[in-house]
Amino acid sequence: MWRGGRWALQVVVGRRFTTAPPPPVGRLNHLAIAVPDLDAAAARYRDVLGVKCSEPLSLPEHGVRVVFVELANTKLELLEPLGDASPIAAFLQKNSAGGIHHICLEVTDIHASMAHVGKRVRLLDKEPKTGAHGLPVVFVHPKDMCGVLTELEEMKG
Amino acid sequence: MWRGGRWALQVVVGRRFTTAPPPPVGRLNHLAIAVPDLDAAAARYRDVLGVKCSEPLSLPEHGVRVVFVELANTKLELLEPLGDASPIAAFLQKNSAGGIHHICLEVTDIHASMAHVGKRVRLLDKEPKTGAHGLPVVFVHPKDMCGVLTELEEMKG
Repeated sequence: MWRGGRWALQVVVGRRFTTAPPPPVGRLNHLAIAVPDLDAAAARYRDVLGVKCSEPLSLPEHGVRVVFVELANTKLELLEPLGDASPIAAFLQKNSAGGIHHICLEVTDIHASMAHVGKRVRLLDKEPKTGAHGLPVVFVHPKDMCGVLTELEEMKG
Repeated sequence: MWRGGRWALQVVVGRRFTTAPPPPVGRLNHLAIAVPDLDAAAARYRDVLGVKCSEPLSLPEHGVRVVFVELANTKLELLEPLGDASPIAAFLQKNSAGGIHHICLEVTDIHASMAHVGKRVRLLDKEPKTGAHGLPVVFVHPKDMCGVLTELEEMKG
């Protein structure tokens, strides 16, 4: 009983007075490239780089058509606008040939990451959204990350 | 002797009349992010994302100071201009907060990759240069790769 009481006290003290380490960021899940013509872009990447590309997939709820390009350690996602309210339409108006739209980093607990990151820089969403892979995501303001639009995606272990 | 002769003939026919597969592209070696203030950028990435950052390294022959940011499967390279002729100075004039400058893909044979890629899109160099890691590299024109400046780096097996 006494030893149990001491352990319980240590846990409480640890929680209240130590600084928790930042929630870990793991893999680069993908690099998203906005393109004006998805089929031409996939053909270009396949032909020039010899990389394996998926069939195009329409994601109307996310306003994009996507092709996944497999690399040995991560993937590229080629994104074409789909519909009038596509989140990449404005980017392509400024970058007509296409360009890197965002990077996606994996986290293990989206709420813990949001609490940590949101105290330091601006998040674009107050609550996690469901991303294109069906997992919880949040975006960090690009101006606060050296001009890089950064998506955090919760991966289930 | 007869079997040896048949095999030799097959090799010659294979070389002359079959279409060789494209030289393979392997890992995403790194993602280079140009930043106006390297120390501030490294502190930001370390603090916000909890990622491990190297000490800054000056590479005057490449016109940059660099910090390597370790991710689980690849790395980010934060680049600050060094000297008057830095290759990232013009990029930062257009993108004052910083931004993704290029991606680097690993290849196994830079000359074979240049022969294949150079028939299809524009290379920025006629011969491989020695990159920041001391390995042979070549850049592909970003306009030909959907707006993405793409470095190919030869990795020794």
